Amino acid sequence: MLEQMPEQVREKEPLVHVITNFVTVNDCANIILAAGGSPIMTSDIREVEEIVGISQALVLNIGSTDTVEAMTAAGKKANEGNCPVVFDPVAAGASQLRKGICKKLLKEIQFTVIRGNISEIKAIATGSSTAKGVDADVMDTVTEENLESAVKLAKSLSARTGAVIVLTGAIDIAADADHAYVIRNGCQRMSKITGSGCMLTALIGAFCGANPCYPLIAAAAAAAVMGISGELADKKATEQEAGTSSFRNYLIDAVSNFTKEQFERGICIETY
Amino acid sequence: MLEQMPEQVREKEPLVHVITNFVTVNDCANIILAAGGSPIMTSDIREVEEIVGISQALVLNIGSTDTVEAMTAAGKKANEGNCPVVFDPVAAGASQLRKGICKKLLKEIQFTVIRGNISEIKAIATGSSTAKGVDADVMDTVTEENLESAVKLAKSLSARTGAVIVLTGAIDIAADADHAYVIRNGCQRMSKITGSGCMLTALIGAFCGANPCYPLIAAAAAAAVMGISGELADKKATEQEAGTSSFRNYLIDAVSNFTKEQFERGICIETY
Amino acid sequence: MLEQMPEQVREKEPLVHVITNFVTVNDCANIILAAGGSPIMTSDIREVEEIVGISQALVLNIGSTDTVEAMTAAGKKANEGNCPVVFDPVAAGASQLRKGICKKLLKEIQFTVIRGNISEIKAIATGSSTAKGVDADVMDTVTEENLESAVKLAKSLSARTGAVIVLTGAIDIAADADHAYVIRNGCQRMSKITGSGCMLTALIGAFCGANPCYPLIAAAAAAAVMGISGELADKKATEQEAGTSSFRNYLIDAVSNFTKEQFERGICIETY
Repeated sequence: MLEQMPEQVREKEPLVHVITNFVTVNDCANIILAAGGSPIMTSDIREVEEIVGISQALVLNIGSTDTVEAMTAAGKKANEGNCPVVFDPVAAGASQLRKGICKKLLKEIQFTVIRGNISEIKAIATGSSTAKGVDADVMDTVTEENLESAVKLAKSLSARTGAVIVLTGAIDIAADADHAYVIRNGCQRMSKITGSGCMLTALIGAFCGANPCYPLIAAAAAAAVMGISGELADKKATEQEAGTSSFRNYLIDAVSNFTKEQFERGICIETY
Repeated sequence: MLEQMPEQVREKEPLVHVITNFVTVNDCANIILAAGGSPIMTSDIREVEEIVGISQALVLNIGSTDTVEAMTAAGKKANEGNCPVVFDPVAAGASQLRKGICKKLLKEIQFTVIRGNISEIKAIATGSSTAKGVDADVMDTVTEENLESAVKLAKSLSARTGAVIVLTGAIDIAADADHAYVIRNGCQRMSKITGSGCMLTALIGAFCGANPCYPLIAAAAAAAVMGISGELADKKATEQEAGTSSFRNYLIDAVSNFTKEQFERGICIETY
Repeated sequence: MLEQMPEQVREKEPLVHVITNFVTVNDCANIILAAGGSPIMTSDIREVEEIVGISQALVLNIGSTDTVEAMTAAGKKANEGNCPVVFDPVAAGASQLRKGICKKLLKEIQFTVIRGNISEIKAIATGSSTAKGVDADVMDTVTEENLESAVKLAKSLSARTGAVIVLTGAIDIAADADHAYVIRNGCQRMSKITGSGCMLTALIGAFCGANPCYPLIAAAAAAAVMGISGELADKKATEQEAGTSSFRNYLIDAVSNFTKEQFERGICIETY
């Protein structure tokens, strides 16, 4: 079923309502379009419920912290209509404000998927973090050594929140309370552009919008598509002696040209 | 006269004041620069009238819905000084909020040009729409079959509003109450990036700023430049096996390198 | 020491807190990452002081005029902690509002570096300007003829403000009250994309964050890196018959791939 996920997005063209930050909003809209979805990016509280009502997925990204009221209204409306809600707790541990926002949103909204780096997921799980700004702390990354405890963290946070947890880094984990996928795709260059995380969250929104009944598989597939696309983009950037900005374009290019063959050949996934 | 329009922008370097959404604002600024204009993107009500006072064109884009007061003040100031005002009713039919904003702006401001996809133009004309988010509904596109009625719609909306109507899609229409141009340039890939519509609206602003006395011809020329640039970008993207993000760059590239020869060779326009 | 500056950024990976406009925010984040820093772009007054507290540099850009309160709070906090503060007075002379904002910020905050085009620096220095929107007026650029008076202007503004002044254009000047560097790198194409100035300001933030004790040398080095990267990008864009959007990508690419050898070979700098 996993390998059919990318095509489902192109077939169903889900409308994805995204409330997000102004830093990476253009990349998020473009990656949703590249995957086959249709993005709408409004955060105006006077219309978010109406827009959620016509959308197949809702993405909430706290990179911008001034739309929490609109996020709450949109999230509640989505919950009423069984519209999947994907949450990106950007820099969750970096300030008291963000910790408070995460707490409030987690209380008010039933999330379908929560995606963050390990610093962000730890901040959500424990209320504290060693995060350095928006990037995961180097002391705080998923490696083969701490993989087991990271999977345990994801599963237990999923049990507590009812959301699929996607924990991203050099190794990605997608888990519900009982099952976990470990995905070893992607490349180091993804950490040298802004928006890798936000774009994956937006992509998960599109995948869940096309496959609302299977959020764990949809999220794992989206993470794999992002990772494989990153590898393809990295290869092209290296061949062309290009840098990070061209890499960002090649990454979105790869998503827009993504084939079932690339998916099946490229995916490096195991259950854990 | 039409074929001199692109050069006029480079000669006159119009200052284009744009009040727009945060999703595609960077692309809009870059396409104005690429065409030869100078963009300024402020929406602060404390300065918009002053900025309009030094500008050659004003562009209002309701992709962001929180600057209506500033748009109204800027639009009124522009009307006083005979500064052309170009309006982009993004997702006009997608919410009651947007319908209300369009109604208010149409009442308060005399627009020089209104540009939208057919769902948006229908929403303006009739107050209702089958729009799906920000993209035109597939049931609701301009084809050879419904071209005549689309031209009629554009002309009658122009008669009612006093604005040139630019209706874009696979086929573009630019019309005033009496005359219409039908432009068959562009490519399918333009619908797979965010901002194709917003960028064209910004470009129309630059063209009207350089040619304020001929808004119909300026708007038709801008639509043709955008369409031809889309074709050139599509050709390059295909040759290089690139995707949508590179296509977006090639599109802006093509506008920045645009020549009179490309215009004359590439334009596919007829009066209707 | 100058030539070690770019490597210092990669070694120290400074966290750079940027309060900036929504037009070029993505480019600013990406160029900081490309140089080796880590950007965080929040302007929420409820968290800016906390974020400044973990940052190595603060960048304030008034391209957006609605975050002055947050800028003031962040700037004061940075001053307390000896965190360098870099100021970009975008379009300083274009409206009364911006003149007032500059006056207020200059009064409340001790800036480490102020970077602008000559119209903006004149507006700061004299309270008036012939600026045309966000771009420097053509009557108002640094040339070999007026270089001496431009250096004098920079030095005297530095004496008055205590900040290093970076005055950019075809020729760049970095000056404190007593010393000036004149940098002849860069290319004409940099004026045909939005964000050249904002990106350099962000880059200066990263360089000062890595070298807080030497703001003049850090700022001069950042200007040289930007200029040399512009030249490399221009060469590539010309070879590939590319336009302005690809040029923007190649510029950020060049910063991400920047080597000590390119710096030493490319830099064209003299004390003045």
